[in-house]
Amino acid sequence: MISKSSAQTLALTELGRDTCPMEWQIKTSGAGLYEFTRDVAAKVTGTGVLTLFVQHTSCSLLIQENADPEVQTDLAAFFDRLVPPSDHPRMSYLRHTYEGPDDMPAHIKAAMLPTSLQIPVISGEMQLGTWQGIYIFEHKTVPHLRRVVGMMVGAVR
Amino acid sequence: MISKSSAQTLALTELGRDTCPMEWQIKTSGAGLYEFTRDVAAKVTGTGVLTLFVQHTSCSLLIQENADPEVQTDLAAFFDRLVPPSDHPRMSYLRHTYEGPDDMPAHIKAAMLPTSLQIPVISGEMQLGTWQGIYIFEHKTVPHLRRVVGMMVGAVR
Amino acid sequence: MISKSSAQTLALTELGRDTCPMEWQIKTSGAGLYEFTRDVAAKVTGTGVLTLFVQHTSCSLLIQENADPEVQTDLAAFFDRLVPPSDHPRMSYLRHTYEGPDDMPAHIKAAMLPTSLQIPVISGEMQLGTWQGIYIFEHKTVPHLRRVVGMMVGAVR
Repeated sequence: MISKSSAQTLALTELGRDTCPMEWQIKTSGAGLYEFTRDVAAKVTGTGVLTLFVQHTSCSLLIQENADPEVQTDLAAFFDRLVPPSDHPRMSYLRHTYEGPDDMPAHIKAAMLPTSLQIPVISGEMQLGTWQGIYIFEHKTVPHLRRVVGMMVGAVR
Repeated sequence: MISKSSAQTLALTELGRDTCPMEWQIKTSGAGLYEFTRDVAAKVTGTGVLTLFVQHTSCSLLIQENADPEVQTDLAAFFDRLVPPSDHPRMSYLRHTYEGPDDMPAHIKAAMLPTSLQIPVISGEMQLGTWQGIYIFEHKTVPHLRRVVGMMVGAVR
Repeated sequence: MISKSSAQTLALTELGRDTCPMEWQIKTSGAGLYEFTRDVAAKVTGTGVLTLFVQHTSCSLLIQENADPEVQTDLAAFFDRLVPPSDHPRMSYLRHTYEGPDDMPAHIKAAMLPTSLQIPVISGEMQLGTWQGIYIFEHKTVPHLRRVVGMMVGAVR
């Protein structure tokens, strides 16, 4: 039987020089927040800092309240009003519009919100607060498959 | 006599599997910025990257100018205008309002501003610029006790 | 002949206790985005997480789309409208104005956009997505020399 931490090490050795030791593929179906805290927790081992990194410039990572789902819809509603589609009169100064009216606003939201997260981990337990969940914040309207890579770095002892 | 770095190691061993090696409790008394750069400097040892992580979704961490206090009040004033209380007519679309008019705006500000900070450290000295200070940015109006956890990861040599 | 990774180690030893192992000086000539992805790639070695940290509070670091330059001008245009100069009527509440009309807006933008970036690295290759580039986002109108320090921390194996 292989323990969780041995399996982790094995995966890293197998993946070798080309791939991050952790990766998540998240399917999104329109703009909004998608929680994947449990998927992260299932892969994390050791003590140190976990870095999550999203390899896209039209969605974000976010740590936010995970109790009331209305927090998530309110967050999306706020950013939609702050950065309306590029065919909105207020956004007529935008030039990068040929990929659709949601494209440049997606890049703007991706600039304002995190591309990476860092979470302290003790003995495989992420040190999240009681109400903190980990989300993909999708800014595009059509479905996407989003790739998040993860890497643990060890604490100084 | 125990040196600073030995004390740090000892604390980590004692805390063991349950707690981060560094932690700060910061009392806030209303919205605004609270500097705690010196409290961080007092605990940091070694060479690597320090991660600070706040375990809440209604306040933020921030690195900002620490020379003129008006920078801090101007920052708070800007974000208060960008994200007014949920009883403001402009915010009537918000649904998560039962925790008070400052609650959902606090979550929005916490999405726009950092939950974690990463600071390079050389021989126990944070590599901050001349005018950079470390702050808790409180978004709630009533007093809170905010918990920030910290972890050092070692530089590759 | 010294291999790239030996040279890196040597540099760290030489720099010793006072300086970060990696540093970039970036000249800016007015507000906008300046890509320096290749300069970073040229110095990165090993496997772990690279932290980039800018030692200023009036410019930012950003990971953004590097295909169409109009994305970069649109980003700057959006933030200029969101945070106009302090002599704009909408900003009359600002108090920190003696360093010029672009100064407090620069601090506000520096609060909303990253001071540090974290990028997973495998065998010296940053794990950026296809369209992700690394930028300095300058918020000041006069030329500046911006200092970015970098540090690698090693992956847990």
